[in-house]
Amino acid sequence: MMILGITMGDAAGIGPEIIVGAWREIVCQTNSQAVVYGHPEILQHAAVLRNINAVITEIRSVREIIPTPGVLETLTIPTLTIPCIRCGEDNVTQVPHGTVDARTGDAAYQAIIRAVDDAKTGILDAVVTAPIHKNALNLAGYHYPGHTEILAERCGVNDFAMMLYLGHGENIYSEHGLAVVHVTLHTAMKNIFGQITKDSVVAKAKLIDDFMRRIIGSAKRQPRIGVCSLNPHAGEDGLFGTEEIQIIRPAIQQALAEGLDIKGPFPADTIMTEAQKGTFDAVVAMFHDQGHIALKLLGMHRAVNITLGLPIIRTSVAHGTAFDKAWQGTAQTGSLIEACRVAAKLASSQ
Amino acid sequence: MMILGITMGDAAGIGPEIIVGAWREIVCQTNSQAVVYGHPEILQHAAVLRNINAVITEIRSVREIIPTPGVLETLTIPTLTIPCIRCGEDNVTQVPHGTVDARTGDAAYQAIIRAVDDAKTGILDAVVTAPIHKNALNLAGYHYPGHTEILAERCGVNDFAMMLYLGHGENIYSEHGLAVVHVTLHTAMKNIFGQITKDSVVAKAKLIDDFMRRIIGSAKRQPRIGVCSLNPHAGEDGLFGTEEIQIIRPAIQQALAEGLDIKGPFPADTIMTEAQKGTFDAVVAMFHDQGHIALKLLGMHRAVNITLGLPIIRTSVAHGTAFDKAWQGTAQTGSLIEACRVAAKLASSQ
Repeated sequence: MMILGITMGDAAGIGPEIIVGAWREIVCQTNSQAVVYGHPEILQHAAVLRNINAVITEIRSVREIIPTPGVLETLTIPTLTIPCIRCGEDNVTQVPHGTVDARTGDAAYQAIIRAVDDAKTGILDAVVTAPIHKNALNLAGYHYPGHTEILAERCGVNDFAMMLYLGHGENIYSEHGLAVVHVTLHTAMKNIFGQITKDSVVAKAKLIDDFMRRIIGSAKRQPRIGVCSLNPHAGEDGLFGTEEIQIIRPAIQQALAEGLDIKGPFPADTIMTEAQKGTFDAVVAMFHDQGHIALKLLGMHRAVNITLGLPIIRTSVAHGTAFDKAWQGTAQTGSLIEACRVAAKLASSQ
Repeated sequence: MMILGITMGDAAGIGPEIIVGAWREIVCQTNSQAVVYGHPEILQHAAVLRNINAVITEIRSVREIIPTPGVLETLTIPTLTIPCIRCGEDNVTQVPHGTVDARTGDAAYQAIIRAVDDAKTGILDAVVTAPIHKNALNLAGYHYPGHTEILAERCGVNDFAMMLYLGHGENIYSEHGLAVVHVTLHTAMKNIFGQITKDSVVAKAKLIDDFMRRIIGSAKRQPRIGVCSLNPHAGEDGLFGTEEIQIIRPAIQQALAEGLDIKGPFPADTIMTEAQKGTFDAVVAMFHDQGHIALKLLGMHRAVNITLGLPIIRTSVAHGTAFDKAWQGTAQTGSLIEACRVAAKLASSQ
């Protein structure tokens, strides 16, 4: 029995409502058990908001999960049972919707930590996270730029990467979808130059190669990886910057020597249209916006965020807390369902 | 009678074949006269390649153009007449297809200069350029990063900007299309920080406001402009960089005070999905890839490149010479047709 742990995210945002809204599909599409790390009362409010007939069952440990019915039963049963492990203080229920607050920030952090620890001990097969709000986290005294850095620290890992993934479907013609990994991520643009090194580019290429091997199936074929340039027009032979010549090309040579199917550097604007057509299974982007602009345009509501390099499996929605749309009952659930689907696929390929 | 001058671009690339391939549609859709600045023999070869029944008529000056038949006649006449002003040396015909060569670089440059000079004197209403190859230009002794800089220098202009435009249609829901202007463009990423100033952001916003007023029709409504952040997540309140707080926000305040309908800075990945939906008519991007990744994904074959701030009207295809696909007779003509359509619209709104 595979178990996915879903963290509730910031309770003032869209996390709770997308979890209850997606629950039936998550169970059906992943054929897994799922458990929420968060506050049961908030989940119950979200179920009422979305007019979903659900019983939130509080459990103390993943070991208490009673297997829910199979896919066919889940499709038809009128009342969903959603197991929930209570995380954080009860005062989280008093936070007004759509606001930044230390109480929701603290509760969101506690849920992540508990789920990660459960995954580390192996009683949870994967962690899927709903969005958190960085300012709320900061107010609660946790100073991280995002989920990824919390997870890496808790797992004691230095060599990690944040990745976006869009499965095959609308706009993505490759049979196995399109993955984009970022060499630099949550940092000022002024700071990216020191972080783009031959080693960091090779490391990210290897992480995404490993990920796509698991998605494609390692027995089938190698993932085809394309690498973005940092500068416009791939640096135009040194006219617009030398990082392509001095760093990215040597990194690609080394990755080739290590057996990867990897090409580049290509201008970031042309590589994305090629990747969309299916020329590549994965793209190595040099900074946040290169990957995010493309994948959000190609599939804002389907995109999944994955942390590579951790000893646990972790996927996430690719959107934020959407405070302006939260608790109206209309938030889209597609990204969370995809995040759970990919988490289950990765867990089953281990 | 409105006259569009179309420069042939690099003769070893796809310029000649897209010009002859698009000719009938250009004349019909713009209801203008058009003249090619290039080499008549190469145009004739391109017509044979694409199996188009065309007579290339060499003329010495725009003043010699004999009005071609109207739209209805153009749709039905079997043989097209394409007037051409010979530019550059005859040795350009000896350059192998798909190669970088000083001879094609020189001819491409001569054509641009001649067309710009004709537009400056007013005998040409707009210049539409086919793609050039920067290395060929360099070999010929002309050291420019691109068309834009040649045009600005020839026109004696310092305050100019390169813009991408996608008309209403597939993927673009705004009735008047979507325009993206770049604060920095053909430069190494390391150099953009010095070029992003309050003044440069305001100047680009005003240029794109002026452009979209002409597209929308100034009597109707103001263009709605969105401004990208430089850093990921719009700088996350200073956590990922301070340019949003110190430069971009004050620039937006100033543009607002000057009467523009302008908002931001927004994270570049979310602003592009909003703009696609029609929330904005125009976007101010901070660097090349922010705008180009988005517009190439949204409409690679329809995108038009426009230089703002010149005393003449200049539009261009948004793609390159495509040496790998040149002279096979299959290059797509959509971007050139759009470039001519926008040029004619701008010329008629003056």
